[in-house]
Amino acid sequence: MNENRRVSIEALFYPKTVAVIGATAERKFGQIAFENLLKNRGGIEVIPVNPKADTILGVKCYPSVKAIPGKVDLAVVIVPAKIALQVVRECVEKEVKAVILISGGFSEAGPEGKQLEEQVIKAIKDSKTRILGPNTLGVLMPRNAINTTFFPEDRFIKPRDGKIAFISQSGASAVAFMETATFYEVGFSAFVGLGNEADLTETDFIEYFAEDPGTSAICLYLEKISNGRRFLQVCRRVSREKPLVVLKAGRTERGARAALSHTGSLAGFDKVANGAFKQCGIVRAIDETELLDYAVALAFQRPLPGDRIAVLTFGGGAGVIATDLIEASQYLRMADLPENVKKKLRDVVAPFASVNNPVDTTGNITNERVEKVLKILQEAEEVDGILTIMGLQSVYISMELVNLLVKWARHGSKPVVVVGLGVGLTLEAVRKLMTLGVPAYPTVRRGVNALEALAQRGKYLERLKA
Amino acid sequence: MNENRRVSIEALFYPKTVAVIGATAERKFGQIAFENLLKNRGGIEVIPVNPKADTILGVKCYPSVKAIPGKVDLAVVIVPAKIALQVVRECVEKEVKAVILISGGFSEAGPEGKQLEEQVIKAIKDSKTRILGPNTLGVLMPRNAINTTFFPEDRFIKPRDGKIAFISQSGASAVAFMETATFYEVGFSAFVGLGNEADLTETDFIEYFAEDPGTSAICLYLEKISNGRRFLQVCRRVSREKPLVVLKAGRTERGARAALSHTGSLAGFDKVANGAFKQCGIVRAIDETELLDYAVALAFQRPLPGDRIAVLTFGGGAGVIATDLIEASQYLRMADLPENVKKKLRDVVAPFASVNNPVDTTGNITNERVEKVLKILQEAEEVDGILTIMGLQSVYISMELVNLLVKWARHGSKPVVVVGLGVGLTLEAVRKLMTLGVPAYPTVRRGVNALEALAQRGKYLERLKA
Repeated sequence: MNENRRVSIEALFYPKTVAVIGATAERKFGQIAFENLLKNRGGIEVIPVNPKADTILGVKCYPSVKAIPGKVDLAVVIVPAKIALQVVRECVEKEVKAVILISGGFSEAGPEGKQLEEQVIKAIKDSKTRILGPNTLGVLMPRNAINTTFFPEDRFIKPRDGKIAFISQSGASAVAFMETATFYEVGFSAFVGLGNEADLTETDFIEYFAEDPGTSAICLYLEKISNGRRFLQVCRRVSREKPLVVLKAGRTERGARAALSHTGSLAGFDKVANGAFKQCGIVRAIDETELLDYAVALAFQRPLPGDRIAVLTFGGGAGVIATDLIEASQYLRMADLPENVKKKLRDVVAPFASVNNPVDTTGNITNERVEKVLKILQEAEEVDGILTIMGLQSVYISMELVNLLVKWARHGSKPVVVVGLGVGLTLEAVRKLMTLGVPAYPTVRRGVNALEALAQRGKYLERLKA
Repeated sequence: MNENRRVSIEALFYPKTVAVIGATAERKFGQIAFENLLKNRGGIEVIPVNPKADTILGVKCYPSVKAIPGKVDLAVVIVPAKIALQVVRECVEKEVKAVILISGGFSEAGPEGKQLEEQVIKAIKDSKTRILGPNTLGVLMPRNAINTTFFPEDRFIKPRDGKIAFISQSGASAVAFMETATFYEVGFSAFVGLGNEADLTETDFIEYFAEDPGTSAICLYLEKISNGRRFLQVCRRVSREKPLVVLKAGRTERGARAALSHTGSLAGFDKVANGAFKQCGIVRAIDETELLDYAVALAFQRPLPGDRIAVLTFGGGAGVIATDLIEASQYLRMADLPENVKKKLRDVVAPFASVNNPVDTTGNITNERVEKVLKILQEAEEVDGILTIMGLQSVYISMELVNLLVKWARHGSKPVVVVGLGVGLTLEAVRKLMTLGVPAYPTVRRGVNALEALAQRGKYLERLKA
């Protein structure tokens, strides 16, 4: 990727010195963003800039970015749009590597704002200063606790560290999506809110995270694609190595209108997108749950080598629901277990338990039985992937089950996806599995959908080889 | 409904005296079920029956049900299948009103078990004793803390009291589904596991809950339908008054095979079911999440009078996702807001916030703005229902929002469904809304799906009137 952009993005996530321009003494967004940045994991100096204050939260304040002695890597700008242009000019003069322009009131706000945005772009032309935004929440990087958002600690459960990079054209929504995912211990290598993309775009960040060793899967929430050709080119290249999941909102004409906030018709675009995405190895998500669920599956597990799924369930009902969802899927089908495999299963499950696929351990589920069944299914040639549906409501099963699942997800040759039904011990097990790198979901459909994502990726990589 | 069946079902949920036949001194299912029953809300005498014990958990034990002095309303039977027949015969002699035959090893276990089950049916012929099961977890009624399951307290988070009756042909799975729902404060008037349905069937319970003033919506997990004609007749009658949601698993041929555990082909049945369900006013669910989500929406809110949905969102991204899902739905579409409504909205939202549908308050969401927008949307003739998407990550919004939502969901003329994105304060708000009778869901899709259920029901009731 372009070296200047790489260096600037690096400054977004690993700055040594950050200026918060528009930090305030009052409890407003400018103070909260400053406070959030102060709480970084250390080694990052955070300096408030405000001509009307001497100190903010006890930290010496400077009247302008230029007045700060020494280099500034990153400037987080939270000032009214009309003075943002001057601030950006000063950042360029100061040779700030990256500016996060949190301020709104630019192209999203009408013709006047659009003009202002064009002037901002002009101001950074031929400079090494790159801009994220305007109209953005900025970035979050759990690894070093970089957080430029204006959500206070007591309101927003911040994402934990992990392997998923999340690039989003929506700010508040994306933060909420991550919060929900955090409940299930989903971890993020980084989050970036793109805002109006006056300068840095989704494609720049895809290129960046493609090279980031801490990122195993990249997911994107997009409403528009700045440069379609470049985007697809980059995705095609990147997806060979790293899975890409995209939620392209605005599938319907009305949705596209809502996204673009104007009446330009994009009808028909969606079919084009579907085909193009597929060709470039992008797994497409339809809603926020799919987006992060797919990213988790693809970050944690290898792709499915085929479409034949074996289901191991603790309850008949959940097994039948899973069977219906798998059989109705265009990417999956239920594995046919041959007589010799069934015979092996019969020897380990409870009497009268079903050894057809789904393998139903019935209420007599025990850790030992689950392990034996998983071993048999992992070794069966007729199986490409395993869905394990569990609930820990019975006395005969314990949290030790988690270790067995981890063992057979890691050491077996086939991807394992877990569904945990329930919220007491079961939820605890789901969370533990997620921290140990086994994709685990709270509903049958989400588990099956995750297998679909693994199947899509498997098929794509297979096609590349051919 | 049939008076004998009504009285027997009444005894399942409101027994004065319960005999637990097969209660054990050891920590086995027989002891746990007994212990669970002992923890009823009072006024229910629970007596252990076991010829090998004098007392169990400190309660005097009888050698047989017949040895118990006084009447027994309900017998919960947890003995090996081969002695169950004798126990049932004694229950008939004792004129026990209802028997829950928890024991497995009957028709689900092969030809021998099937024969045994036939003998059990013969034993209750011409008697007033009705049987639930065999091969069932029995019943749960939160209102009086009746719980015949063998899941211990520290393993299973029991359902809370509420307005949904849940009738299920799957035991362990259904219990896990309820546990998940309990996390979101979904409440149940009763749960019944049907087991093999040797005697009492799903239709008996539909008739019973149709007359239960504590039940506002009935949901069913079904794999087979014992008597299709009677089932549909009853559903058609009941659905005029109370909403019915059915998850009929075994939609696919393979799923049907998994459900029936034999190779009889039911291919093609699914299409018949779809049409018949629709004609009888049944809302169909595809997975466990939909089943309980639909029941919540239908229990809490009036049906949609039309298909035009207004979306109020705190974040643009979630609004576009909702728009796409609504426009892609066969039951819903986005309301077109006329200029006069947009003008009113413009006066109350932040500058630059979108007043098209979705109405996007942007990050500047405040309680006051939400209330004003809701009022305008409630009063707009062009709107049939409202989806409110919220997240409480911002400092400018507080839990007071919950009261505003309740007010405008109750006092407005249009159904309101809420989506809460996030898990800190937002999850707290979702839970509070649920306890106050406003359907609230943790993902955009689940909120839109709930509106679909309300639209389906509205359309059905409209058709009935025509």
